[in-house]
Amino acid sequence: MFKRILIANRGEIAVRVIRACQELDIETVAVYSEADANALHVQLADQSVFIGPSDASESYLNKAAILNAARESGADAIHPGYGFLSEDADFAEQVSEAGLTWIGPMPETIRLVGDKDIARAAIAPSGIPMAKGSNPLANREEAIAAARKVGYPVILKPVAGGGGKGMCVAHDEKDLCNILDYLVDITKTKYYFEHYIEHSRHIEVQIVADNYGEVLHLGERECSLQRRNQKLLEESPSIALTQDMRDRVGRLAVKAAKSVHYSNIGTVEFLLDLSNNEFYFMEINPRIQVEHGITEAVTGFDLVRTQIRIAAGEALEITQDDVRFTGHAIECRINAEDPDNHFMPSPGQITFLHEPSGPRVRFDSGVTAGLSIEPYYDSMIAKIIVHGRTRGDAIKIMERALKEFRIDGVKTTVSLHKKILKDTYFRTGNIDTQFIKHRMHAYESTEKKDGAKEINASTYFA
Amino acid sequence: MFKRILIANRGEIAVRVIRACQELDIETVAVYSEADANALHVQLADQSVFIGPSDASESYLNKAAILNAARESGADAIHPGYGFLSEDADFAEQVSEAGLTWIGPMPETIRLVGDKDIARAAIAPSGIPMAKGSNPLANREEAIAAARKVGYPVILKPVAGGGGKGMCVAHDEKDLCNILDYLVDITKTKYYFEHYIEHSRHIEVQIVADNYGEVLHLGERECSLQRRNQKLLEESPSIALTQDMRDRVGRLAVKAAKSVHYSNIGTVEFLLDLSNNEFYFMEINPRIQVEHGITEAVTGFDLVRTQIRIAAGEALEITQDDVRFTGHAIECRINAEDPDNHFMPSPGQITFLHEPSGPRVRFDSGVTAGLSIEPYYDSMIAKIIVHGRTRGDAIKIMERALKEFRIDGVKTTVSLHKKILKDTYFRTGNIDTQFIKHRMHAYESTEKKDGAKEINASTYFA
Repeated sequence: MFKRILIANRGEIAVRVIRACQELDIETVAVYSEADANALHVQLADQSVFIGPSDASESYLNKAAILNAARESGADAIHPGYGFLSEDADFAEQVSEAGLTWIGPMPETIRLVGDKDIARAAIAPSGIPMAKGSNPLANREEAIAAARKVGYPVILKPVAGGGGKGMCVAHDEKDLCNILDYLVDITKTKYYFEHYIEHSRHIEVQIVADNYGEVLHLGERECSLQRRNQKLLEESPSIALTQDMRDRVGRLAVKAAKSVHYSNIGTVEFLLDLSNNEFYFMEINPRIQVEHGITEAVTGFDLVRTQIRIAAGEALEITQDDVRFTGHAIECRINAEDPDNHFMPSPGQITFLHEPSGPRVRFDSGVTAGLSIEPYYDSMIAKIIVHGRTRGDAIKIMERALKEFRIDGVKTTVSLHKKILKDTYFRTGNIDTQFIKHRMHAYESTEKKDGAKEINASTYFA
Repeated sequence: MFKRILIANRGEIAVRVIRACQELDIETVAVYSEADANALHVQLADQSVFIGPSDASESYLNKAAILNAARESGADAIHPGYGFLSEDADFAEQVSEAGLTWIGPMPETIRLVGDKDIARAAIAPSGIPMAKGSNPLANREEAIAAARKVGYPVILKPVAGGGGKGMCVAHDEKDLCNILDYLVDITKTKYYFEHYIEHSRHIEVQIVADNYGEVLHLGERECSLQRRNQKLLEESPSIALTQDMRDRVGRLAVKAAKSVHYSNIGTVEFLLDLSNNEFYFMEINPRIQVEHGITEAVTGFDLVRTQIRIAAGEALEITQDDVRFTGHAIECRINAEDPDNHFMPSPGQITFLHEPSGPRVRFDSGVTAGLSIEPYYDSMIAKIIVHGRTRGDAIKIMERALKEFRIDGVKTTVSLHKKILKDTYFRTGNIDTQFIKHRMHAYESTEKKDGAKEINASTYFA
């Protein structure tokens, strides 16, 4: 097992990795930018190394500085978390070349799954259904021709990168021309098309693979609740799936992972077409996912410890039949954003913090009272994860957790989550990937009427 | 189901009950004393009623004021928590007479188990082993004679009351005479003797009984780690028990509960004599126990919800065979006391609070930053409960949770818990009820050497 792991990340995921290391008796090295000198991950790690200015490009994306920090601190492995360098195959390679262990899939796997075009080509032969798509687009004319071939609506996706960034839907050729006018250069960013499935759910499957060819799945996560392709609230299991569909998508995910000789943990994302209940492969995310905690809740499996153990060469001790699912888990992402002002980031100092806790509530955060939310990084500052016996139970637990939660000094998405949890469509499980877009209007119009029922922050803990 | 429950308590247990009510869609009424006007339980409840001055005898023990509060607020049931009026049969009766539901056993059961002499007499016929004991002592001469009959060492116990208060061990007649000199009047407080088992563990069994005669047990809790008969750290399961012993003590607990026609949840306490591995009945606690959370962790059972449901007349839906145990749970009680100064209470304002959280950690507390710990009440302010796959795993998780926990403004027992968790005797499970007394000396002598390794509070979150 490793002696000392450097965590090339910040915020809640850095804290999460530190916790796993401490529980495995592994020393931790934090890295930090100027803005993060007092950050929670820095305080909790055994040692910490300054790696550069606040701008991530000069710190958390600064490969040389991070490799230096690993050398200086005597780390023998690097955990990349999510985002930043976690899907950078070159960096994973450099880590190995420096004699350190990369806690994640092999660099060649990261490279393969990171190019959606190549990934689709590699996975297609195994017979996994995929939305009809184009090759990477060479120019404007080809784009128009490709869209006709794929059939409208189409979704324009950057070949590289994940997390739903940079995607646009065109419903017809006029739409497409507008989008193409707006995009600077489709060949430079490298875009391709997929046929856009209008009524769909985002269903993803957690996979776990050791270095010896054993691949398991830990069930699905329902991630349809997104705002501009950014997940807001996730749950496991998905109530849209019958046991038969669950088994099917699990098998598809394992097959996809095996077809690219995947090792370590990862997520296979699918779109579930609600018109025919068919799953269409989207991509493989070769890293820990933000929403991994809901899978941990329903399976009892520790995914971060597992990442570390697999990277250290341990074989999986269980088989698919040993995986048991219990209850229903929901996660709400708490972003420092103002839901009443177009979700603008809301940086500032946290002047008071009361975390939700008690039975069946897990709070994963990277902040404490007194710290400042800096504008340089992602606005997600915490996650609330609850584990109920049933979906209804989980909803009630999340409601009471959100009611308890109080943070002063920054605005957050808590008020939006409260509305979603009360929403009849959500409660009955009547959701798809357009849910947030469509329901936001309803929330806005009822806001004035229900405003008085919201927690009155001025009397709460008065 | 109830519409509105009044919680006749304060602190973490009041918060715990509020959480359960919210999850069951039941409104909550808090009561509070002068000192608790801003307390967390008051802030979280739907409504709150002032019941009197800070001194508990005029507020949390003020039956008339609490019954008035219930009437005024329109509550239809009262949850007493633990301590205060929770074992007061007269109050339970008054609650029923006022047309409200008492969330706990029947008043006559509370009365029966509350008098240890009567309880022993009621339970003895069912064949449950008990330490040899005396009748209530009439005078000094009878005490000396009874001690000779029971055999030294003896433990002098007040007939009424629980929580380990007012108990004295006499190893010989000289010891006993000293104790009797010190006690003002053994007949007024009503004492009796039991033979004192020197090498023993405190093993208690959680029982659940509905109003229709169904009684289950939810396994044992190991509560041997006590300082002056006050529990400090509890775990479930106990590693001292073989499966055979576990089944045996579970059966004994169910038998004891049935013999007094017990309903609602409760705890049957036993001493495990380490010289012969025999369990001796001590008492039944007719209320929720501080350490109930570790049983919830290993069974997945919600004990507070269960209390409420049983009181509302619901039948148990499961049988003993449905109870499954998973992993190992540990609880550390966080008291606002100074372990370096004879555990003197440490009241004061909490100027900063960072709660431990993340996977497998539950934090039940009644405080927030900014609140003051008042000297009027019990010094326990929070509980950390962890759930690991194994005992070793649970110990590691608790260590990381204690490392994360920071509270400024009051002293706490955290430093003692850190020492216990590192203790080789504890780690190997080599503990008994005298553990804390014996090991405190060892900790004190190594303190100077290890001091530097402790968390340096001045740099933590600097």
